[in-house]
Amino acid sequence: MAMAIRAQADAILAANATDMAAADGGLSPALRDRLQVTRDRIEAMAAGLDVIAALPDPVGAVAAAWVTPNGLTFERIRVPLGVVGIVFESRPNVTADAGALAVMAGNAVILRGGSEAAQSTAAIHACLVAGLTAAGLPMGAIQRVADPDRALVGAMLGAVGLIDVLIPRGGKGLVARVLAEAKVPVLAHLDGNNHVYVDAAADPEMALRIVLDSKLRRTGVCGAMETLLIDAAYPDPATLLRALLDGRCDVRADASLLALDPRLTPAVAADWDTEYLDAVAAAASVDGVAGAIVHIANHGSHHTDAIVTADPITAARFLGEVDSAIVLHNASTQFADGAEFGFGGEIGIATGRLHARGPVALEGLTTYKNVVRGTGQVRGGG
Amino acid sequence: MAMAIRAQADAILAANATDMAAADGGLSPALRDRLQVTRDRIEAMAAGLDVIAALPDPVGAVAAAWVTPNGLTFERIRVPLGVVGIVFESRPNVTADAGALAVMAGNAVILRGGSEAAQSTAAIHACLVAGLTAAGLPMGAIQRVADPDRALVGAMLGAVGLIDVLIPRGGKGLVARVLAEAKVPVLAHLDGNNHVYVDAAADPEMALRIVLDSKLRRTGVCGAMETLLIDAAYPDPATLLRALLDGRCDVRADASLLALDPRLTPAVAADWDTEYLDAVAAAASVDGVAGAIVHIANHGSHHTDAIVTADPITAARFLGEVDSAIVLHNASTQFADGAEFGFGGEIGIATGRLHARGPVALEGLTTYKNVVRGTGQVRGGG
Repeated sequence: MAMAIRAQADAILAANATDMAAADGGLSPALRDRLQVTRDRIEAMAAGLDVIAALPDPVGAVAAAWVTPNGLTFERIRVPLGVVGIVFESRPNVTADAGALAVMAGNAVILRGGSEAAQSTAAIHACLVAGLTAAGLPMGAIQRVADPDRALVGAMLGAVGLIDVLIPRGGKGLVARVLAEAKVPVLAHLDGNNHVYVDAAADPEMALRIVLDSKLRRTGVCGAMETLLIDAAYPDPATLLRALLDGRCDVRADASLLALDPRLTPAVAADWDTEYLDAVAAAASVDGVAGAIVHIANHGSHHTDAIVTADPITAARFLGEVDSAIVLHNASTQFADGAEFGFGGEIGIATGRLHARGPVALEGLTTYKNVVRGTGQVRGGG
Repeated sequence: MAMAIRAQADAILAANATDMAAADGGLSPALRDRLQVTRDRIEAMAAGLDVIAALPDPVGAVAAAWVTPNGLTFERIRVPLGVVGIVFESRPNVTADAGALAVMAGNAVILRGGSEAAQSTAAIHACLVAGLTAAGLPMGAIQRVADPDRALVGAMLGAVGLIDVLIPRGGKGLVARVLAEAKVPVLAHLDGNNHVYVDAAADPEMALRIVLDSKLRRTGVCGAMETLLIDAAYPDPATLLRALLDGRCDVRADASLLALDPRLTPAVAADWDTEYLDAVAAAASVDGVAGAIVHIANHGSHHTDAIVTADPITAARFLGEVDSAIVLHNASTQFADGAEFGFGGEIGIATGRLHARGPVALEGLTTYKNVVRGTGQVRGGG
């Protein structure tokens, strides 16, 4: 698959150019960024497939094993999840990551991409199928729903017994529809309302670097920071706010921060609960790590939250008490990506509490069976 | 909790006697067996709590850890699932297992038992609360819904954001309702249509022992065998069938077995898909392990299936290809119980594919968070 993607880079770029031209003007800059395929992104896609291919086969792994007092050998063995349905919008690279991860974990996958990325998705899908064929695997292991009829999404949502898990990726409208209507289990996140908390004990230079990267590296990704929380005891909040403003970020500040720069605008209540996915951030002063934990509990979306501090005790408290799928200490929230953590890509990020939490990759695409070996034992008794 | 249950054994027995008297005549023998509490079962309940208390704390366990190439330390840490709702019927011991397992995994639990077991459940719940109090834990960690109004079950099914997972235990009507109506994620099994396959290479004495225990030890439990599959090449099928018949089991046999004993009755198509939960079994001749695998794929409920054979290659094929939560080799299906496998009890058995499969105990009652520690890393790039 990786070889086919590298060999067909020109074809993928041409297909993407067609999609980009068709979308012209109809998409926000953040959405255009998601749709865009570049030569670097094609190489990243192929490199991700190389990483996945080099990972240990998750199927058959013994997750746990012991012998019971009466001599039964108990093993928990990883097995494929089954048929994985992916409903996605905009980001063509989802095709490669999702297809390869699902098949590496022994599943079949049904991909239903958005019409705005139809040509790009088709070109990448063709490379995956070429890879399957070259490896002697069934073409049907990675299927693409090419028909743009939206009723087909409804059919996937109701396919109990045919699709084992659905993973929606895209805008909030799509994910909310899937979460509300699906009869099939769903792994997803609706919001990435992520926080960076800068503690009084943070190294100022590190805090500045992490805040800027978390917000501005790419504003349209689900791991982007949306609210900056600054410890009331932090010595220099103005530098953090000014750097965001200098980076052309609109910053909506609470009353205690508002006087620090004339470019700041006053935050309203809704700002604390908003995922901007754009060059906009909310900023609040909080009373230490306890205040940050309370703010995140009240407004967070259980996706990704970070603390910057040199104090290990404060860090441990934040990492322990913030109830998010991904919690980071002294690192950018933009690392919220399976590939960055060594998963070889991701098929989505889940903020639900069951099965998989955070980036969903090979392990999240497997389940297990309990295999018990005896020597004739019966339970007896009453 | 275990101490309180042992100390209050007489009170629990008296409460159970009240429930049994009230139910008199209104329940099948299998349901009466589920409702009945005996001194042995009280001791088993207390012993189960002792086992749970001695298990390692699952919360905080590091399920996986590595360092990424750019120096991020990645850890997957087990955390509590949250609030667990249990809706159950008949079996009063569910109170103890479910309450203790949920709390041991750091959760709060809301128990809603059936009205037929109200007195027994209340007596056991009082012991759990006494244990919580003695340990300095909040009484609210194990809550019991005493009001018999069935609308309260509906409230639990719709409590998205308040209850994190629902576990129904009881008759098919209850479980089907929960699966159909719940907006909250559910861990459950609807059917335990379990098979024992006796291979041509089975030890006859072992096969007889396992078949009888699987069917007749307790007929009302979800791990009971419902269909016996006998290899067409097995030398002595008649002995297996006669032993079941001698044990007062009604046996519904396919055409090829019917002539082996005049007490056999002909199976109809529905028998292959029926969970009798009573002294009734279906019996079919199959063409080796491949035939057994196909039969189970067509008629099984992904709960518990067993093979009896002395041939390790045949066993490996069955254990690998039968897609059930629990697969056993040379052991009775009646071991399908978390306590028997060393889980210290179980809060239910799940036949879905996500999160937990088979007995749900401490690990199934936790989830994880991804904890990432850096030294100031930002993602940068594009």
